[in-house]
Amino acid sequence: MVEEVTVGKLKEHFRGEQGRIVEEWSTLLKFPSISTDPLHDHDCRSCASWLAAHLSSLGFKVELVETAGKPLLCAELERSSSAPTVAFYGHYDVQPVDPLEFWQSKPFEPQLRDGRMYARGAQDNKGQLFFFVKGVEALLRLNALPVNLKLFIEGEEESGSKGILQVLPEISSRLKSDILMVCDTGCESLSHPAVTMGIRGLVHLTVAVKGLKKDLHSGQHGGVVKNPALELLRLLATLHDSQGKVTVAEFYEGVEGVDPKDKALANEAPFDLAEYLEQVGVPPSGGESGFSPAERRGFRPTIEVNGVHSGYDGPGSKTIIPATAFAKLTCRLVGRQDPERTLERVVSHLTNHAPKDLVLEIPEKGVGGPALLMSVNAPAVQRAREVLDELSGGKTTFLWEGGSIPVVAALAREAKAAPLLVGFGLEKDNIHAPNESFGLDQFEMGYLYVARLLNGLKDVP
Amino acid sequence: MVEEVTVGKLKEHFRGEQGRIVEEWSTLLKFPSISTDPLHDHDCRSCASWLAAHLSSLGFKVELVETAGKPLLCAELERSSSAPTVAFYGHYDVQPVDPLEFWQSKPFEPQLRDGRMYARGAQDNKGQLFFFVKGVEALLRLNALPVNLKLFIEGEEESGSKGILQVLPEISSRLKSDILMVCDTGCESLSHPAVTMGIRGLVHLTVAVKGLKKDLHSGQHGGVVKNPALELLRLLATLHDSQGKVTVAEFYEGVEGVDPKDKALANEAPFDLAEYLEQVGVPPSGGESGFSPAERRGFRPTIEVNGVHSGYDGPGSKTIIPATAFAKLTCRLVGRQDPERTLERVVSHLTNHAPKDLVLEIPEKGVGGPALLMSVNAPAVQRAREVLDELSGGKTTFLWEGGSIPVVAALAREAKAAPLLVGFGLEKDNIHAPNESFGLDQFEMGYLYVARLLNGLKDVP
Repeated sequence: MVEEVTVGKLKEHFRGEQGRIVEEWSTLLKFPSISTDPLHDHDCRSCASWLAAHLSSLGFKVELVETAGKPLLCAELERSSSAPTVAFYGHYDVQPVDPLEFWQSKPFEPQLRDGRMYARGAQDNKGQLFFFVKGVEALLRLNALPVNLKLFIEGEEESGSKGILQVLPEISSRLKSDILMVCDTGCESLSHPAVTMGIRGLVHLTVAVKGLKKDLHSGQHGGVVKNPALELLRLLATLHDSQGKVTVAEFYEGVEGVDPKDKALANEAPFDLAEYLEQVGVPPSGGESGFSPAERRGFRPTIEVNGVHSGYDGPGSKTIIPATAFAKLTCRLVGRQDPERTLERVVSHLTNHAPKDLVLEIPEKGVGGPALLMSVNAPAVQRAREVLDELSGGKTTFLWEGGSIPVVAALAREAKAAPLLVGFGLEKDNIHAPNESFGLDQFEMGYLYVARLLNGLKDVP
Repeated sequence: MVEEVTVGKLKEHFRGEQGRIVEEWSTLLKFPSISTDPLHDHDCRSCASWLAAHLSSLGFKVELVETAGKPLLCAELERSSSAPTVAFYGHYDVQPVDPLEFWQSKPFEPQLRDGRMYARGAQDNKGQLFFFVKGVEALLRLNALPVNLKLFIEGEEESGSKGILQVLPEISSRLKSDILMVCDTGCESLSHPAVTMGIRGLVHLTVAVKGLKKDLHSGQHGGVVKNPALELLRLLATLHDSQGKVTVAEFYEGVEGVDPKDKALANEAPFDLAEYLEQVGVPPSGGESGFSPAERRGFRPTIEVNGVHSGYDGPGSKTIIPATAFAKLTCRLVGRQDPERTLERVVSHLTNHAPKDLVLEIPEKGVGGPALLMSVNAPAVQRAREVLDELSGGKTTFLWEGGSIPVVAALAREAKAAPLLVGFGLEKDNIHAPNESFGLDQFEMGYLYVARLLNGLKDVP
């Protein structure tokens, strides 16, 4: 039997080791492990290797499982065959860094300023996975870890998780666990920590309008030939009606009615409009009319334009009809929406509305994962609530997050484990944007949550 | 009295001098005189100075008139106070060169390949203005120039002609002339040379949708906040109805009914559909329904998207809501459409349809010039027809061009001169696009036209 370690003792331990922990964290952040860019393949591998060596030094049995993409890091620590087994999922890859000119310090030269670490991945997910590792390390050093651990850290979360999904059948037996912990989510504020009760699914595609052999003079050809930029944007404008509802046929199949209790809980989570305006710049008035912001984020699917590009972008004007135009789209899915079928439906809509006499192409498309819904009564969720209540004085909230962790639904199913999503991300962390950062206070709270939760798991929940 | 010089004699002269002419032309093409880009201001001035020195060496009295923008080159050659005076308008500035990666040779390192000169400006307008200069030079050497000449060569045609329009009042008296020649247009083929009977007017603007403080995570914010990329493209999609008609209120004011004779002439000009498909890649099925391609080009106004940019453009996907989106628009005007008022109407439409809760900006807008219509019965047009018939065996056509030479209408009015627009541009010249070129055969035909026309102008037409 391991002893209980108190929050006070864990804090003392953290503060004694903080210098070393920050140094190790910085090392992890220096790898430019951008998985969407093939040029960074080697950097992804180097990052995985460093993390493997680090976990090995803590006593984990480590393997880098090769996939068609980036390697999957599997790390196991066996304590007792009768103890509960906790799986952990995280990712060592990060988002691209453009626009680079808006970064105050370089994205892969981590800088600690005013108690916050600035770097790409500082939060998503290197920061949040590293407080998990440091929480485990503390329990090991204090001889207070009562559970078996299985870590699965992939390198393609930001680019569709293809590798881990590909090797899922062969790692199926090792996945078996009681709880699947994920620390890749956020909360409204550290004083209101949150359990994430749902995440949305994701599909993505690129749509291009082509056909012209070259950019054309807009005088000679304006009004004569179809304009690919104009036709693409007219096509994309058909995806929503005037109320923000998606017009793709059967798009809403599987978007089941929301349980009124869940809806009430989602709407109960504190939403500070002034804070939202301060952070985002505009009010939360997007999406479908007739739903609150929390409902739109948690329970409604979307089609978003992540990028659209065609023709001239320099100073002044250039009188051309651009030869090509393309847009990058993603859909967030909810409920039982089927990712493959949703993607097909969007492609069909685009094809059916394609501009005549030009060429429509879908040069790239892919499926992330389906949506995931947890129950507030699940024992793992209740355990997490107890720990978060202890850390916040009873202020735990339940969030239906709008984001996607594509592989989590598949992993939980395969592991037959209860998913448990708790993270300490804040709006100001600027994930997926310039000047991503993560506060030392957020890191420490994550570490405390992990250590207290694992320390308390003396039996299978 | 000067003697008549025959086509044969002019051809003989050209071929004897061709090596030198090509060398001088190449020198002119080497100046990267991109007027829209402030970084090339010095290159524009160098280009004007070289051209000034060249005209001076031919006997012209030359002045570089300073403007708020690029200098205006004025060059005069007085033969006799009783002789007709011919003004010539051209421009020494060129379009930007992007996308650079599609150029087979560098845009400002002219290369002669298979009888064609490849360079930015090879045709538009350095090629066409230089055959004018060489036509004049030949008449001077053969002692066969019967007219006074006034050349006005500006450096901002591709960026709104602000400088020349600004100094128009102060050069008003020198502008006075009988004919205003412009060689900045094209024809279907060299065997069907053309007089351009109309050019469209031009206004331009940039429209931006902003408001978000940063790129947002499309999971956390998708469906919560308005997406600037999506809102911009939905806004732009309101500019046309399903039949391609512009929906801006009062946009068509001044688009008068077309004279059936003009319409018939415009539709008579040869239009080779197979050639169009080969050159352009798609059929001429854009613009408003109910009009032929020639009518849409010559007699109908447009709003075109020249560029639209927002968010991610790299490989793979990036799950963001882009913070900003912008588009570059131009309108081609016809008939008596008022440029200033048209611009106001387009801005009003955009403002009236602006997405609520986001910020609409028009960071840049400007007026080129109004449209211009000539009469097929004008004596200058008939003189040109005779020369072109001589060169083509009676195959002269009349074109209502879709392009704009913003300043020509203003110059003609100020000069009280009959405008005469004849040029030898072909579709394959790729003006405003990568691999712009101009054939030596086109250059020679332009030279012959200029020399024969001027040589024959023994009295005021």
